[in-house]
Amino acid sequence: MIEQRDASMIKQVVAIGGGLIGSGWAARYLLHGINVTVYDPDPKTAETVANSMAAAERAWRQLTLAPPAARGHLSVVHTEVEFFAALKTADWVQESLPEREELKQKVLKQIEPHLADTTIIASSTSGLLPSRLQSVLKQPQRFCVAHPFTPVYLLPLVEICGGDATSEDSKQRAAAFYRTIGMLPLVLKKEIDGFIADRLMEALWREALWLVHDDIASTSEIDDAIRLGCGLRWAFMGPFLTYRLGGGEGGMRHFMQQFAPTLQLPWTKLMDTPEMDETLVDKIVAQSDAQAAGKSIGELMHWRDDCLVALMRSLAGADIGDTGVGAALAVSEQYRYTHAHPPTLNSDSAIAAPLCLHQTQVPAAWIDYNGHTTESRYLQVFGDCTDALLHTIGVDSDYIASGSSYYTVETHLRHLAQSYQGDILHCDTQLLAADEKRLHIFHTLRREQTIVATAEHLLLHVSNERAAPASAAILTRVKAIAAAHADLATPTGAGRHISIHSQS
Amino acid sequence: MIEQRDASMIKQVVAIGGGLIGSGWAARYLLHGINVTVYDPDPKTAETVANSMAAAERAWRQLTLAPPAARGHLSVVHTEVEFFAALKTADWVQESLPEREELKQKVLKQIEPHLADTTIIASSTSGLLPSRLQSVLKQPQRFCVAHPFTPVYLLPLVEICGGDATSEDSKQRAAAFYRTIGMLPLVLKKEIDGFIADRLMEALWREALWLVHDDIASTSEIDDAIRLGCGLRWAFMGPFLTYRLGGGEGGMRHFMQQFAPTLQLPWTKLMDTPEMDETLVDKIVAQSDAQAAGKSIGELMHWRDDCLVALMRSLAGADIGDTGVGAALAVSEQYRYTHAHPPTLNSDSAIAAPLCLHQTQVPAAWIDYNGHTTESRYLQVFGDCTDALLHTIGVDSDYIASGSSYYTVETHLRHLAQSYQGDILHCDTQLLAADEKRLHIFHTLRREQTIVATAEHLLLHVSNERAAPASAAILTRVKAIAAAHADLATPTGAGRHISIHSQS
Repeated sequence: MIEQRDASMIKQVVAIGGGLIGSGWAARYLLHGINVTVYDPDPKTAETVANSMAAAERAWRQLTLAPPAARGHLSVVHTEVEFFAALKTADWVQESLPEREELKQKVLKQIEPHLADTTIIASSTSGLLPSRLQSVLKQPQRFCVAHPFTPVYLLPLVEICGGDATSEDSKQRAAAFYRTIGMLPLVLKKEIDGFIADRLMEALWREALWLVHDDIASTSEIDDAIRLGCGLRWAFMGPFLTYRLGGGEGGMRHFMQQFAPTLQLPWTKLMDTPEMDETLVDKIVAQSDAQAAGKSIGELMHWRDDCLVALMRSLAGADIGDTGVGAALAVSEQYRYTHAHPPTLNSDSAIAAPLCLHQTQVPAAWIDYNGHTTESRYLQVFGDCTDALLHTIGVDSDYIASGSSYYTVETHLRHLAQSYQGDILHCDTQLLAADEKRLHIFHTLRREQTIVATAEHLLLHVSNERAAPASAAILTRVKAIAAAHADLATPTGAGRHISIHSQS
Repeated sequence: MIEQRDASMIKQVVAIGGGLIGSGWAARYLLHGINVTVYDPDPKTAETVANSMAAAERAWRQLTLAPPAARGHLSVVHTEVEFFAALKTADWVQESLPEREELKQKVLKQIEPHLADTTIIASSTSGLLPSRLQSVLKQPQRFCVAHPFTPVYLLPLVEICGGDATSEDSKQRAAAFYRTIGMLPLVLKKEIDGFIADRLMEALWREALWLVHDDIASTSEIDDAIRLGCGLRWAFMGPFLTYRLGGGEGGMRHFMQQFAPTLQLPWTKLMDTPEMDETLVDKIVAQSDAQAAGKSIGELMHWRDDCLVALMRSLAGADIGDTGVGAALAVSEQYRYTHAHPPTLNSDSAIAAPLCLHQTQVPAAWIDYNGHTTESRYLQVFGDCTDALLHTIGVDSDYIASGSSYYTVETHLRHLAQSYQGDILHCDTQLLAADEKRLHIFHTLRREQTIVATAEHLLLHVSNERAAPASAAILTRVKAIAAAHADLATPTGAGRHISIHSQS
């Protein structure tokens, strides 16, 4: 058993090669407080590493809310003298040279005399065999492959692959070490060219090259064929779990039976396939069952949909750039806004009561560490309720594009009950007051009859970033609602201020 | 030119086959207000379709905030008489039978006499050739493939592939129609077995089968090899854009030059690769340049990281289930909390001023349709500031696991200035009052010296879901901060209530 303590004793890494991979490693190590010496004769190395570090800091600032920790110390060296000196005190060596076996072997041979006996040498190779790389070492048991994925400072996967001479202890030490820097090591049972991930990616890549070569599709069409379909699934399920669900209630066995004949069809250039005999089917079914860990197809489908929804919402975000998903969603949303059944504001009676313009269901992603809907999601729901009201009074995409909109300037929230995953929340909206530039509104959010939260908002109308009266058409609708709501009772909780002393 | 109006005139679809694919289509159509008749002799069809519809409704309720629109009308029929009657009034036929060419041909031949001349027949086949399927039709020009991806009600991709006899008009009508139901059609230039997406997926799948067959990896290891690395990238970039960035500043040409030799290595079973000559390199570089549309590698890398961060945050969400990403992130967060440099509360002087416990940078995903940080994100940031305060006074994961925590019961927000993508926001936190059960706090969020927003919160301490005093250890720290903050001025805006009339 390797202790966590062991792995966390790595304080000093020498990174050989400061290109895209080497500098990505350096950034990940530095962020986790590990000192790094990068050796690369290229005079631009310091700049490359600084760029990686800036990108890594930027990404991690957004990825986690945990406070930044003290960084490791970085040295960039260009000469062999400095390099060899650094190796003497290294706890770990990360080799990220170009993918040429003889080059890697030459450098491995060169560095070994300078290393302490316990120092592990990990190679970032994408597919060269560790047995061949380590063959030049006097102590080959300390060598293994640790293959990362770009951006190295962000993606969690690292493949650990030993050669014939690698000790089990070295592989376990490597796995434990990479875990301490936020990675998820996949330790290979057997050595193979290209390891696991790259074999899968290479098969797809070679097929993609044929499609371009044969003018079946352009690079952009191929990228769309991946990212708008299977890519969204592959972000959280690999092919086996995907196909387990593709088999419906019959699961993996049904899928394999249904699609075994298509393995003989020329649906890819890769026509050399294993025979889908009973042994292979049974093996895959057993492994897939173990992987599902007792979860039913229905449960897995719900989970899949939750993940897809979370991903699609993330990628549809306004300014995240063109991910495709946003465009598709916009069409459906336009349809829904145009064909929404109630509410309509065509009749006076429809607006005499508080408006019920929005409802939503609490998704898994909204749940916090206490098991309840997280605080900020309520404001998101209330923001959506406000958007629904604005849409109702005529603030549509054309109006916004013309430079006018309402902005929220002040908000008062009361949290009165918890809500949980799957709850359906619906909202009543009351207009408390309005003038040419301002709306004072009150939302009441309920789960069935229980009031979960309320929000009181003051909105200011702006045109070209300055306070200004709303358009005549909008004010007409605002006045109609204000008149209809004039006789409604002021809701409980309106007009409150915060105090530690109870309010009457 | 096909008009949008044309596509939206599709009011009545007959879906042949009500399995996983057919029922997924039915749900997508119904959600977009289109009437559907599903024909399937299986008596369980109504249940399958109802399950799909329930899953689709559940997913879309979370996916979009646009209000639900009126559903289409659903009929499920089991007899040929009812089936043929439905075909007479169908605007569109969606065939989703098992992947057997002769079966599909038989049914196509059978239905044609019952259809109006203008009705399009679209097949959901994953890879059978449209030229062969349509060969049995009298009017083969109206036939095309429209290949979707499970879950059909959610994923945007649909591949449109015509056969030799398919008219250009039919393909364009199909693309226009599927766009109206929120899909992104990929229209193939040439017919090919397996189309584009499945050829890529099949290559990967066949490689995966070999890895299991040869005991290199289990189904679960293969799934991890995809989802924790390249899968996260493939959710928004296909292989070409990924590798363009893998080439660093040298882009696609550099990547191809660097990795062309590895195409000869046995890094997958698919060893039949196109020759990477100058013609192919130039072609791929030109297409990849067009795809990048002038964006620099640096810009694309920022965008990639924004997307990855958004996806990883989504998938690390507390209760979304095991996506792997959360576990990796938790290790890094634990490290950061343990090794955070300031603030410490060891000295009195450190707490005499408002506490600066949290800063963040506005990511692209937070930006709303007005180009500013969206409202609810401020409460998210303030929630994180509150979490940082709670962590500081000793509310850690063990304390929460023991059943105690502070909940926010009331919040007052003021929005004083906008913030934009990339802004670094830092927060001062002042403790206005405290007792055994309550904290009254005030956060001031600044971009440099500009106050962007303030938040005033009342927090209540709960143990096992009931209001209760906090632990002695926590109260000691709370008292120390309260004493240190007692002489600070009350911040402007504290104690306000909302009114449309100006407050002094």
